[in-house]
Amino acid sequence: MDTIKNGWFTETSSLWPGQAMSLEVDKVLYNQKSPFQDVVVFKSKTYGNVLVLDGVIQCTERDEFAYQEMIANLALCSHPNPKKTAVKALALATSLGMKCPGAELWRGKIHTAVETTAGQEYNLHDSTPSMVLIIGGGDGGVLREVVKHAAVESVAQCEIDEDVIKVSKQYLPGMAVGFSSPKLKLHVGDGFEFMKENQDAFDVIITDSSDPVGPAESLFQESYYRLMKNALHEDGILGAQGECQWLHLELIKEMRRFCKSLFPVVEYAYSTIPTYPSGQIGFMLCSKNPDTSFREPVRQLSAEEVDRMQLKYYNADMHRAAFVLPEFARKALDA
Amino acid sequence: MDTIKNGWFTETSSLWPGQAMSLEVDKVLYNQKSPFQDVVVFKSKTYGNVLVLDGVIQCTERDEFAYQEMIANLALCSHPNPKKTAVKALALATSLGMKCPGAELWRGKIHTAVETTAGQEYNLHDSTPSMVLIIGGGDGGVLREVVKHAAVESVAQCEIDEDVIKVSKQYLPGMAVGFSSPKLKLHVGDGFEFMKENQDAFDVIITDSSDPVGPAESLFQESYYRLMKNALHEDGILGAQGECQWLHLELIKEMRRFCKSLFPVVEYAYSTIPTYPSGQIGFMLCSKNPDTSFREPVRQLSAEEVDRMQLKYYNADMHRAAFVLPEFARKALDA
Repeated sequence: MDTIKNGWFTETSSLWPGQAMSLEVDKVLYNQKSPFQDVVVFKSKTYGNVLVLDGVIQCTERDEFAYQEMIANLALCSHPNPKKTAVKALALATSLGMKCPGAELWRGKIHTAVETTAGQEYNLHDSTPSMVLIIGGGDGGVLREVVKHAAVESVAQCEIDEDVIKVSKQYLPGMAVGFSSPKLKLHVGDGFEFMKENQDAFDVIITDSSDPVGPAESLFQESYYRLMKNALHEDGILGAQGECQWLHLELIKEMRRFCKSLFPVVEYAYSTIPTYPSGQIGFMLCSKNPDTSFREPVRQLSAEEVDRMQLKYYNADMHRAAFVLPEFARKALDA
Repeated sequence: MDTIKNGWFTETSSLWPGQAMSLEVDKVLYNQKSPFQDVVVFKSKTYGNVLVLDGVIQCTERDEFAYQEMIANLALCSHPNPKKTAVKALALATSLGMKCPGAELWRGKIHTAVETTAGQEYNLHDSTPSMVLIIGGGDGGVLREVVKHAAVESVAQCEIDEDVIKVSKQYLPGMAVGFSSPKLKLHVGDGFEFMKENQDAFDVIITDSSDPVGPAESLFQESYYRLMKNALHEDGILGAQGECQWLHLELIKEMRRFCKSLFPVVEYAYSTIPTYPSGQIGFMLCSKNPDTSFREPVRQLSAEEVDRMQLKYYNADMHRAAFVLPEFARKALDA
């Protein structure tokens, strides 16, 4: 706890040398070593409760929504609702008096169907319940956002550090609220192992990890993205913490390179968030479906849905704007 | 200089209580009291040279471009090139065999002309040289960006603190380069007085001020915006430092309210910039021309122009995206 001095917590790291963010501390609420990392929670003067892992701010109650809403919804709103798509296309085909030669029943549900007429093609996707996997995210914030989607019927979450879940339930109840969802199957353990055992199993995978030092380093490597690819359904989409364009452009460039060798569609987007280094954080988005266009949300939330889901950062316009990069980053990443 | 301790400069302020940004110091280069404020320049470990006024970071060599390019180009690219517009419209009118009854010659140039035919209206603006006024901006960064525009033929700059210009020329040569432009008429003095003496004189006014405490407080008030309005030409546009939506939403809301009482078109946009509080800064944009649409740049820089102007942050897509606000700010400011 040498990161707290004279009533201020200060965040320094070799990942952002020469700069530091400080928050004024009201009271330290928790300070223990878990089997994986140092876990600290403090009540700050102006940012609510703050979770710190290995000396790095993971979330504050004041601005966490910017990260959670964006990492969840950039991916989820880029994936067509499988059920809706299938039902709509089948209804259309039927109304046109067409047969659907590719339609198969699979486990009692429409599996896949393709019909072409008058130049229009309807792809009917697997309509088994939308399965989402969250890797990491032990504070529950991403989970809270994911389960707001009616189309999401089941969420598996794999968090390696049970202590993070425990302290979040106690000190970050507004985030950990997701853990009470009946849609959730929680696995405490290693995400690598879990994905090896669950191949071709998910529509969307979201990796909510800490930075690429220590336990999370491997989550920024090609082998991890290959695992995610295999754990996704045929048309699956992933969204992962993708670091900051102001600080780690070379890392992002390298990640983008190997992602492009694995997926037909790869994009980088970002969210602003005051308490992350340099005030923002990026997301790597990959799709196995070559028709995915991340920049234009295929499921566009209406103003009413944004209200009903109590979103404070994400909306359809913000989704589009998140992919527009400053010229220096655009040049580096489009090359 | 009690803001530098143990080799780190730390920025605290009552404007952002409970949070602080720190930069590691390599060497203090300048530390004097000017007649207006404390002026400090230090060489940082990772952000180049840093200018600090009254304890607050004004710019660092590493990320200053994000602010300068955006505050200059959001306004300048929203103002039609008067000359081009006039010439184009006159050519069109002539080619259609039309007379331009409203066209007048004024000091040897087309002053104004309006012609309507087949439902199309051409507004021919004053085509005297584009006049830009910069208030503040003593580091020269905004000036550097403004004089890159060929359409800008004359720039008046009014900076109250000559010491800021002097130290910038010495320690921030990459920014102060603008001061050598033959387009510049530099006035060391009070912007309020200067504008009172120069009414109906400018196409674009840019206010590059520090935060609303101390000397710059009045630059965030209605009376100042009224002065800018009067100093602008009939179709003039202004862009001003507009504080951070994460920190000062109530101030921005109030500014927007009084701006709307003065101007037919008012918008708020923002730029990300790591070394400003909470990692971003906003801009208030106002136009006296009801047809101005800030969100869609009327002068869209091509990729070649962006290259030629050596822009590192601004491009036409970034212009559009800068107006897309997170849901919490959109709600507060659209209301």
